[in-house]
Amino acid sequence: MTDPTPHPTPSFDFSQEEFQRVGTRVLAAMWEAIQKGQTAPIIAPARGDEVRALVDEPLPRQGIAVDEVISTWSSAMLPHCRQNGHPRFFGYVVTSPDPIGIFADAMASAMNQGLTAWRSAPGATEVERLVLRWLDELVGFGGVGSGILTSGGSSANFHALACAVHKADAAGAPRHQQTIYMSREAHVSMRKAGRVLGIPDAQIHLIPVDERRRLRLDLLAAQLDQDREVGLVPSAVCASAGGANTGAIDPLGEVADLCAAQDLWLHIDGAYGAPAAATTKYAWMQDAFRRADSLSLDPHKWLFAPADVGCLLLRDEEGSRQLFGWESEYTKVTQTDPIERFAFFDHGLEMTRRFRGLKVWSILKARGADGIIEVIDRDIELREALDDRIAQEPELEPLGSELSISCFRFNPSSAQTEAEIDELNRRILETIVHEGEAYMSPTYLEGRYALRACIVNFRTRVEDIHFLLDEVLRIGRAE
Amino acid sequence: MTDPTPHPTPSFDFSQEEFQRVGTRVLAAMWEAIQKGQTAPIIAPARGDEVRALVDEPLPRQGIAVDEVISTWSSAMLPHCRQNGHPRFFGYVVTSPDPIGIFADAMASAMNQGLTAWRSAPGATEVERLVLRWLDELVGFGGVGSGILTSGGSSANFHALACAVHKADAAGAPRHQQTIYMSREAHVSMRKAGRVLGIPDAQIHLIPVDERRRLRLDLLAAQLDQDREVGLVPSAVCASAGGANTGAIDPLGEVADLCAAQDLWLHIDGAYGAPAAATTKYAWMQDAFRRADSLSLDPHKWLFAPADVGCLLLRDEEGSRQLFGWESEYTKVTQTDPIERFAFFDHGLEMTRRFRGLKVWSILKARGADGIIEVIDRDIELREALDDRIAQEPELEPLGSELSISCFRFNPSSAQTEAEIDELNRRILETIVHEGEAYMSPTYLEGRYALRACIVNFRTRVEDIHFLLDEVLRIGRAE
Repeated sequence: MTDPTPHPTPSFDFSQEEFQRVGTRVLAAMWEAIQKGQTAPIIAPARGDEVRALVDEPLPRQGIAVDEVISTWSSAMLPHCRQNGHPRFFGYVVTSPDPIGIFADAMASAMNQGLTAWRSAPGATEVERLVLRWLDELVGFGGVGSGILTSGGSSANFHALACAVHKADAAGAPRHQQTIYMSREAHVSMRKAGRVLGIPDAQIHLIPVDERRRLRLDLLAAQLDQDREVGLVPSAVCASAGGANTGAIDPLGEVADLCAAQDLWLHIDGAYGAPAAATTKYAWMQDAFRRADSLSLDPHKWLFAPADVGCLLLRDEEGSRQLFGWESEYTKVTQTDPIERFAFFDHGLEMTRRFRGLKVWSILKARGADGIIEVIDRDIELREALDDRIAQEPELEPLGSELSISCFRFNPSSAQTEAEIDELNRRILETIVHEGEAYMSPTYLEGRYALRACIVNFRTRVEDIHFLLDEVLRIGRAE
Repeated sequence: MTDPTPHPTPSFDFSQEEFQRVGTRVLAAMWEAIQKGQTAPIIAPARGDEVRALVDEPLPRQGIAVDEVISTWSSAMLPHCRQNGHPRFFGYVVTSPDPIGIFADAMASAMNQGLTAWRSAPGATEVERLVLRWLDELVGFGGVGSGILTSGGSSANFHALACAVHKADAAGAPRHQQTIYMSREAHVSMRKAGRVLGIPDAQIHLIPVDERRRLRLDLLAAQLDQDREVGLVPSAVCASAGGANTGAIDPLGEVADLCAAQDLWLHIDGAYGAPAAATTKYAWMQDAFRRADSLSLDPHKWLFAPADVGCLLLRDEEGSRQLFGWESEYTKVTQTDPIERFAFFDHGLEMTRRFRGLKVWSILKARGADGIIEVIDRDIELREALDDRIAQEPELEPLGSELSISCFRFNPSSAQTEAEIDELNRRILETIVHEGEAYMSPTYLEGRYALRACIVNFRTRVEDIHFLLDEVLRIGRAE
């Protein structure tokens, strides 16, 4: 046999010196990104074609120096990142990531483990299973750490509903006869999951909410009765432990009672809010968590991990194995030891799985659960401070708040129609975002345009809250 | 309003000096991981309870120094990583990641963009859409770059089948009447996807294969006829452009003809093999790619990106929008410009999405398409060299090869029964894995135990191929 590659063979490896030199540049770029993340403008105003033009080009045939690659990160990409770590970033539900989590993520890429099964990544698998037990303990799910780390809450919610629906399959109900239930405020990922799973849109029931935007239990019960009467098969109820829209927490205990009485799968979406159950103030949620079949929570939200890492905790590991455990010839597990025979691919859609657990492990080790809870508590206190100030300002109208989300609007006595108030608040938000010193995202509550502030940030201080409301008042008054 | 946090408020931020100091330690740990990734043993023999004991502890309440956290990565985790980047790692389909991809992944964590929609991450969204156009161009899909980066091939395959099945939904077929088709050699993720989507297991047809393990077109056509006769509704055919088991490539052109004639969704799973279409040798696959409705390919396999990043290319963007585009109150897109109004969440399950595109962009920029293709070509040549050597060794029996995968077994003339040959090869593989100087994974072909070598590695050289086969012969002869 002759060497099939007599020509100089390309290698992508760096020498130690080059790795050190390039790595030092990368570290500087990472520091720049983290610093810039705390600097205005939070998002630079730019048109689509302008941003596109910065990177658009045909597929390159020849390579360029890695230094040029790194320069482009800083020159063309960073200027058009939204600075989600800024202390006055109040949009959506986006965390400021803990730097130790960022470093751990870098290490995970260097390790490049694929967490398919224990036998293929023993160390990483044990860390990830440990993290599942820790998260279970942190929020009081009361399971044994069954579940899986996912790319986020949407994926966790999807996996939960897939298990619930498959349980109904096994009981003989075809998908088009199944129904699922959630409040109108529930996260869009669960509606999407229902549709993807084959439940007709009309059977994905968005139950109306009460004045605190909590699922109306009486209407849920009535819908369940009505569906059963016409021969439909309820397969799951989704309750929110902190809706992403307004933070609303459904009446978890009552929903759990109803699900227990009717033998229904209870999924709790705590992607955003579940970690609050570790605080004294919201520890009451743990009672319901312990009765749920599944619970989502996102370490890349209120546990300050960089994206992506979500988590699904599951009561019945065997159920997910029955759905996802489909053996193939080249992935057969032959181990017999209970630790060694474990395979994540028996419990989810993914085969190769990034080592997402390392950043969660590292953050929990470096800060301790108490260190994290202290920041969650503070974020909640900051929302309360924001509500206090709104209550003191006659021109500001509260529209509902819970956990670390508050919705409100500028509504001066001079305002006339609802349409005018909507337009006024739309302009306020646009101005704030355009000026770049703070960021909120809008929402619509009972058809009204609302300003929405969400605080999942270890950098936010009470002066940032004042700044935001001062700006709303200043811009509103000037309009 | 009083400051709600008069106590010293915890911050997770590092000073610049501390960031530099810790970052330098992290760089050293990353270098260690990458170096160790090229060092024997590829996997250290260890029992489940031993590995677990290295990290097991209750949820920590108090934090520890970040230096201790980093030390534990090296002391407790690295020793139990499988060294997937080793030049003689021939197991499964796992790449040796390009260091520039590792660095880009670290930068992505520092940027912490959530690629929900253009408006939330303009720069990252443009890079990721550019990467989709580049991947489309690289493999000759002939689309416009519609599609989505996913966590891997399993997720890409799932999204493709979800779109196909939803198209059949829209045509009025309930899930339990739908059918999908793939060969027995097709990746397990597609069977799982079918089940999750609500297609009964009996209607997920695993069509027999020919002597080269390619889907039998005649049997596919017969099964389609038979299903239609009993009122079932075929919703998709999945063909493999390089099966993960043996590398088998289905008769893509003929399958495309059949799908065109019968108006069936054609999904091609090229998670592993699609990048080979960029080489001269396998460019013929592009004809079929251009006729497929969807194509999966994994940059974290043969494009040398660290996990995770998969990709789904889609012909009809509108179809995925109809399935996944379910608007919610707090994510309404109000932009009108076609670039600015784009939202990834209209085309997939995920909401927050990690900036996976940065590592793909960085690798393609640093190496150029030609640099990548050169390595893919070499990996294929190495498999051919392996086959040549097998042909020369009377004790080695070839069991089929394609692309960069070759299956074979030790089968000396002295061997008696098939069961004995199986057992002999099982012991050879166990010894190789235990000794740690090389790694293969087993598979079962027509019920026979097979040794399987897969080369998606920029470090592998022809001497590594010789080493592997020398070991197989040495151990086999000594048994």
